This record gives sequence, structure tokens and C-alpha cells, in this order.
Amino acid sequence: MLRSLLTRQSSRTLLSATVQRRAFVAAPSSVNSKVWELGILNHVAIACPDLEKATAFYRDVLKGKCSEQIALPEHGVTTVFVNLGNTKIELLHPLGEKSPIAGFLAKNKEGGMHHICLEVDNVYTAMADVKANGVRVLDKEPKIGAHGKPVVFLHPKDCGGVLVELEQR
Amino acid sequence: MLRSLLTRQSSRTLLSATVQRRAFVAAPSSVNSKVWELGILNHVAIACPDLEKATAFYRDVLKGKCSEQIALPEHGVTTVFVNLGNTKIELLHPLGEKSPIAGFLAKNKEGGMHHICLEVDNVYTAMADVKANGVRVLDKEPKIGAHGKPVVFLHPKDCGGVLVELEQR
Repeated sequence: MLRSLLTRQSSRTLLSATVQRRAFVAAPSSVNSKVWELGILNHVAIACPDLEKATAFYRDVLKGKCSEQIALPEHGVTTVFVNLGNTKIELLHPLGEKSPIAGFLAKNKEGGMHHICLEVDNVYTAMADVKANGVRVLDKEPKIGAHGKPVVFLHPKDCGGVLVELEQR
Repeated sequence: MLRSLLTRQSSRTLLSATVQRRAFVAAPSSVNSKVWELGILNHVAIACPDLEKATAFYRDVLKGKCSEQIALPEHGVTTVFVNLGNTKIELLHPLGEKSPIAGFLAKNKEGGMHHICLEVDNVYTAMADVKANGVRVLDKEPKIGAHGKPVVFLHPKDCGGVLVELEQR
């Protein structure tokens, strides 16, 4: 009986310890992992000093399916989509005075890869979770992105030198 | 009968003219366009000064599905694949003394996007065609790439500042 009580007590203690240990190891990341998931690569964005020339390269030389030029003044860019079947390249050219890609093109005169955009099923919880993991988010709240969906950008210094956009799918 | 002959003759002339015109407008690019096609985005390659840290970011923070580290000494890199469902991110870290990404990391200490890899159905004709369109190809002949398939790299100065890899699908 005593042995049985002790065993039961030990089991409870062990169980309690296990639960506590699991909770400790898991939080906050695994708790949040249940409420958001990473999706596909929505696009690779390429900043272009000459949008006509870049479009000609992807359309005429590489035989990609390119859209018309689409002006997005609220995002400070004119864009051309290159549909690759599984994902897109987005060619970006500055539009207006406060274009978010003007600084990049000042440093990279010939253009280059500007950011990658990854889909998430919930950009709000994803944002909170990556913040909890020490990654700086460039906006306080998600903004409506070029595709009409909420997006946030993550600081490239916290993402191995890559500007990462998370977009609600 | 005469009318019929004339009509036939006119048809032939027209047909011949059309063929000639098509051939004229098409050459050399469209002739080659029949023998190669652009495919999907195979991967985005990211050069990483710290492969463990980069893998932890994509696996633990972004919840991506990451492979183990794969050493590819013949390509001068150790790589980790991040499977995004529609395409892959390839994290690259220098391996050996003559790594092709050493120069990039010397300039970009924190790492960054190194190249994009686009699939083509025939890398040999694609290579000849892009050359005919004035794009420099970095190798004289396709080499066997990291996936065991023939690849060529295109000069970033001819591709809007982006290093582009074409891989036989």
C-alpha cells in the first residue's frame, strides 16, 4: 500500500515534471506554431532600373510569360509579373518620390534581387511569433500589400541578409 | 479552270510569302524557341556565412521543412534545402578553398540572395539561344550541377544584376 502510494505519488510528480518541462521547452514557439503555418513561395522580387529592358530579358530572351506593366502608386512601384508556373518573379521599378526600392537601386545600379515573399496562413500570428523569436518586423501592423492581402516585412539583418515578406495567403 | 489555277497559284504565293515572312520575323530567336522552353523556378539560392543559424531561422522561426546538411565538395558548397511546396530555397555555405560563393560572402558579410535557378527543357539549345541574344554564359559548356543535371550560369550584368542558373529539367 505504501509502495503503491509512493509509486502513484512518483508518477504524479514525474507527470507534472514532464508537463512542466514540455511547456517550458515549447513556449512560446510551439504554442504559436499551432496557429500559423508557412506556405509556398509567392514570388521573388527583382528591382529594375529599366523595366522595359528587364521585361524584354524575361519575355524575349528567357521566353517567360510576362504581364503588362501595372502601376501601384500606393506601393511606390510599377511592376511586371513573370509567371513561371509554380511561382512568380515580380519586376519592380520605382514609381513616385518615396519608392521603397529607390534606396536599393541607389546602391545596386544594375538592379538585383530585392526580396522573397513567403505565404503564411495567418500573418498576424506569424508576425507575433517571429517577433517572439527575436526577429524585427519592419511595420507595427500588417499593411495591405500589392496583391490586396495583409503583409509584413522582416528585417534582413535578422534573416541572413535577405529581406523577407510574409503575405497572408 | 484558269481561275482555279490562279487561285491555287495565289494561294501558293501567299503561303510562300507567309512562310518567308514568318521565317524572317522569327529568326533567330523564334527558330530556337521551338527547341527549348522555359520551365518553373527550381530554387532560390541564399549564401549563408553561418549555415546552422540560417537553417535555424528557416526551420525554427519560419517553420520551413529543412533537409539535413548535404556536403557537395565538387561544387564547393554545403547545402540545406528548404522545401516550400512549390519550389525550394537552397541555403549555401562555402566548402573547401575554391568555393564559388566565397567572393559573394566576402562582399556580403551577412549573406544574401545569390542566384535564381530556372528550369529549361533543353539547356544546350537554351544556352545557344540566349548567347545569340547577347547574354554572356559563364561556362563554355553546361556542367553537371548540384542536382546531377546539366546547368549553365548567365552573367548577372546581362540579366539585370541577377545571377541566373538554367538547369535541364
